[in-house]
Amino acid sequence: HLTLKRVLLLVSNSTLHGSGYLDHCQQQISDFFGKSVKRVLFVPYALHDRDGYTKTARDKFRTLGYEVDGIHEAADPVEAVRKAEAIFIGGGNTFRLLKSLYDNQVVSEIRKRVLEDGVPYMGSSAGTNVATISISTTNDMPIVYPPSFAAIGLVPFNINPHYIDPDANSRHMGETREQRITQYHEEVDTCVLGLREGCMLLVEGNKATLLGSTNARLFSRGKPRVEYNPGSDLSFLLNDAH
Amino acid sequence: HLTLKRVLLLVSNSTLHGSGYLDHCQQQISDFFGKSVKRVLFVPYALHDRDGYTKTARDKFRTLGYEVDGIHEAADPVEAVRKAEAIFIGGGNTFRLLKSLYDNQVVSEIRKRVLEDGVPYMGSSAGTNVATISISTTNDMPIVYPPSFAAIGLVPFNINPHYIDPDANSRHMGETREQRITQYHEEVDTCVLGLREGCMLLVEGNKATLLGSTNARLFSRGKPRVEYNPGSDLSFLLNDAH
Repeated sequence: HLTLKRVLLLVSNSTLHGSGYLDHCQQQISDFFGKSVKRVLFVPYALHDRDGYTKTARDKFRTLGYEVDGIHEAADPVEAVRKAEAIFIGGGNTFRLLKSLYDNQVVSEIRKRVLEDGVPYMGSSAGTNVATISISTTNDMPIVYPPSFAAIGLVPFNINPHYIDPDANSRHMGETREQRITQYHEEVDTCVLGLREGCMLLVEGNKATLLGSTNARLFSRGKPRVEYNPGSDLSFLLNDAH
Repeated sequence: HLTLKRVLLLVSNSTLHGSGYLDHCQQQISDFFGKSVKRVLFVPYALHDRDGYTKTARDKFRTLGYEVDGIHEAADPVEAVRKAEAIFIGGGNTFRLLKSLYDNQVVSEIRKRVLEDGVPYMGSSAGTNVATISISTTNDMPIVYPPSFAAIGLVPFNINPHYIDPDANSRHMGETREQRITQYHEEVDTCVLGLREGCMLLVEGNKATLLGSTNARLFSRGKPRVEYNPGSDLSFLLNDAH
């Protein structure tokens, strides 16, 4: 039961409308990393400007009492993961992120560190997508071709970050988010947790709890959609047999 | 100069708000296929229900005087392409569509028929995406993993169908369509034509013309965005050196 060591904070979105970078979840970040973590390994692969992105994360995390190391600053990214006290993968383009994780050969090392060694893992947006089974429920544009859509697999289901309800006034005819997830379920039988902007999932071993200020919507193939509000226990999602 | 035989009708969207399936482009469809085409080979791979989708297309095309054959109804899809008088690839999920085109080994045969034999090709939405260089500027969810993002390559640029302008009133923090295309240009130097719902591109040999009721927006790496209105000559996009 390696998964009993797992601690994850999977955030829907890095920035909530009207506030600054990670402001809306800074209390949860402090609670999550706590006082024992001093340095967080930041993975900026989802954005093109890795230095600029690392500065943004570093500036924010310093206000919370943590130092940030950019994985791209390390001579050996695998070694950086091996030494990491804690890991944070930021948002951006999920395809670029996953391709870079594979190109740098850190997918399995991150999985090992988090599941076997209990290294705390925080993800935001694309960083939340790559923590799940696959990136098949990302909202992003496929700007590069990763060697697989299989992701780090820290939880046995998929997440749709930035989940958004249909706009009843829209005249746009592109598929709604719910229609897109229904198309996914025509192909694959994996649950999809739609995290609206403002909410996040805390995973501690085999316990999962919804945190934040908005509801999540769970999509299971062939079943009615279910709404969960903050504080809900979603541990059943961690059961492979779900 | 094989491309001189090429005739394409690349439609942004199958259904425009407030009207029925393909209603908004039915005049252009009739003009495009003309009186010599009797039967159109329909490719329903982008939707799960291929029979239902083919019936929808068949019913609509009959009102315009054309019979429709579903490629999935043929014993040998490659042979169906070889015999086709005209081809129409419908919309749905672009990843599912492209994977099915590869699985059925019709990608190169469609390219050959259209570029070398002058078989008229109509695409709508996902069917427009697969007509271009790659599906890297689709809006769809990556529900299945195709063996490549490279598409049929009937034109030397990419298209973003269902192109939509930012909603100034939105509080949603997901990337705008323009931001997503900008991320694509951080990786790849291929022009992207954003076709708003209601417009379509007619390609005749090395001549390209915007048709329909809405503007298109052209994105070129490192250059200002350019708006084109219906009737615009976009032939310059067909020049590989553009």
